[in-house]
Amino acid sequence: MIELVLEAGDRGPRAGTLITPHGCIPTPVFMPVGTQATVKSLSPRELHEIGAGIVLANAYHLMLRPGAERIAAAGGLHRFMGWSGALLTDSGGFQVFSLGGLRRLDDDGATFRSHIDGSEQRLTPERAMRVQEQIGADIIMAFDECPPAEAGREAASEATARTHRWAERCLAAHETDSALFGICQGGMFADLRRESAAFIAALRLPGCAIGGLSVGERKALTWPLLEASVEPLPVDRPRYLMGVGSPEDLVEGVRRGVDMFDCVLPTRLARNGALFTPAGRVNITNARFARLDRPLDEECDCPTCTDFTAAYLHHLFRCEELLAYRLASLHNLRFLIRHCERMRAAILAGDFESYAEAFLARYQPANEQTRYAQRALYRRTRDAHHSAAAPTLPGERT
Amino acid sequence: MIELVLEAGDRGPRAGTLITPHGCIPTPVFMPVGTQATVKSLSPRELHEIGAGIVLANAYHLMLRPGAERIAAAGGLHRFMGWSGALLTDSGGFQVFSLGGLRRLDDDGATFRSHIDGSEQRLTPERAMRVQEQIGADIIMAFDECPPAEAGREAASEATARTHRWAERCLAAHETDSALFGICQGGMFADLRRESAAFIAALRLPGCAIGGLSVGERKALTWPLLEASVEPLPVDRPRYLMGVGSPEDLVEGVRRGVDMFDCVLPTRLARNGALFTPAGRVNITNARFARLDRPLDEECDCPTCTDFTAAYLHHLFRCEELLAYRLASLHNLRFLIRHCERMRAAILAGDFESYAEAFLARYQPANEQTRYAQRALYRRTRDAHHSAAAPTLPGERT
Repeated sequence: MIELVLEAGDRGPRAGTLITPHGCIPTPVFMPVGTQATVKSLSPRELHEIGAGIVLANAYHLMLRPGAERIAAAGGLHRFMGWSGALLTDSGGFQVFSLGGLRRLDDDGATFRSHIDGSEQRLTPERAMRVQEQIGADIIMAFDECPPAEAGREAASEATARTHRWAERCLAAHETDSALFGICQGGMFADLRRESAAFIAALRLPGCAIGGLSVGERKALTWPLLEASVEPLPVDRPRYLMGVGSPEDLVEGVRRGVDMFDCVLPTRLARNGALFTPAGRVNITNARFARLDRPLDEECDCPTCTDFTAAYLHHLFRCEELLAYRLASLHNLRFLIRHCERMRAAILAGDFESYAEAFLARYQPANEQTRYAQRALYRRTRDAHHSAAAPTLPGERT
Repeated sequence: MIELVLEAGDRGPRAGTLITPHGCIPTPVFMPVGTQATVKSLSPRELHEIGAGIVLANAYHLMLRPGAERIAAAGGLHRFMGWSGALLTDSGGFQVFSLGGLRRLDDDGATFRSHIDGSEQRLTPERAMRVQEQIGADIIMAFDECPPAEAGREAASEATARTHRWAERCLAAHETDSALFGICQGGMFADLRRESAAFIAALRLPGCAIGGLSVGERKALTWPLLEASVEPLPVDRPRYLMGVGSPEDLVEGVRRGVDMFDCVLPTRLARNGALFTPAGRVNITNARFARLDRPLDEECDCPTCTDFTAAYLHHLFRCEELLAYRLASLHNLRFLIRHCERMRAAILAGDFESYAEAFLARYQPANEQTRYAQRALYRRTRDAHHSAAAPTLPGERT
């Protein structure tokens, strides 16, 4: 089981420690995504070195390859991937509905085609529990239906009601001592979000996730909806905002009481040469970095900025050398993890807003229109690029 | 400058220490290839950890990208790539003649097209020296003409004579305190090889390389030709057999008095999932590894076999995850480096032949026909795969 010990705040910005069987994790926390039992290009040792305490993997991908039984036979996911920190698995709901393979959806579950070999697969709440229990993460997620950003009130309401029935079935089917987190939905409707959060809160699960945000809606809409979702949640349980991971969005999430985040954004951007700096994202392939014989970010304590120059990183990207993806991923992940460490320190010092304002005043976010264009590009090319470097998609869950 | 201190042997198997401005390197030594200022997928720290003391980079690639002046401005190759060990650069001769871009060859030099942007480039002995001096490796190589395996006596003789004239010009043009190694050629003709080695030996350079072997000829031909090349070389200078790097070929080279080797084989094979074991190469993508929850090689002390199972490595390759290429490269390089360490220990113990026989009795080399087929496949696809994972080509120089 896991437990959140709060050290500062209850509503609004909070600092705490998540106690897990695989380590104590200071919150707020950003969780790197290791979809297929590996954070792309990085070793477990490197993840420890940049301060990662918990990694997310994906039950959807792992049940298809290498198979949940296989991971169980190998002694569970921690042993299989050589990671001694904490692990969380996403249930697969988001992937079933987003990867384009959905064939049939009914109240019992979802039938879909594998994105690997086209084989027909079925996930129900009970099977999602069984699969995740076999995989053996510390935290497992309820099987949910995530309505798309464009869903109208009726569709969103139906998906949310189904998510609630499925959450109850997940709870009933859950057998191991892993911590089951519920997921609240509610689409783009504040009242549905409040109702959903209240329903999930009433299940008294060890943690509550907020799903279905940052799925393509305008950011101006995201934050009031997040507030509606957070408000009914229990103060003493961790709150996990799924699929959010840009530096500026982490500030907004923490400001509203979120404790946990995950996103493929930092690693996917990294593989495309887009690197976080205190002033905003830069693209290392830009000619202006060719002669910069200093670290990309002089203030950064990551292994990349400590050991290598921007000019070398530029060279590696221009040559499409494999080391490029690694060094860039280390930098972007360390940037977000350090950002969380600093938000935590500010909260403990009673000074979160000063940090938030100073950070946001300096950090220039990517233009929202650019982000949507990137997302559309990514959707079109997703199959071709499934496991290699791929165009960017901000805010995607996996 | 550099110096070889011999500790055992003079003709036949030798053990020594290569004294360089960037560390003392026990010999015989295998040098990992970092063509574009990076050993594909690996960090300098990892190279140190697997026992690499010297790395090879390629002047041909680096003069085109990022440019020799750029590397000089960055403080030289050691600083540019963050490598504190020793470095050797190949002159570019082999690439000019092998990458298919040669446009015009005369006694003064070679004009060729860049494989990156098609621009016309020229290398002469003087320019090859200047470029390598700007790059700033500890050991630099003379600019040579490497005749193909199928060259007849006349063509081989002409290329060898030109190589000699160019070696003299390199020596005259050489200005820095880097160590210039000569390269002897001679094609597939033992008498030409002897003459060439004697010519290069007479230049009294700090080291002598043997070029133009393992370029596609049958192995039965390689070893007598190597003996002809080694025989006239000075005992007190290091001997470097270029482009040789299979485990079984290292034994044959050391047996005949070679001190230094380089080859892209271990890293290129690794990126294709072909891993060295004491019994021979295995392909980790083979289904038999899917359930092997133990290290690929129980005897191996590499970071991959220490921390991960064969089943996990199999999974990473099946998923085409970037970590796969890294873990496989670490394993294959460590295998060759440890192999050299063991040969050295056996030589010092006066027992090289016992080690060699035991190793060769157990190690099953790849079938020669398979190797030629792989090489032909690689030649056809080389342009498309220039910097990514590519089909295998045993014995290739870069």
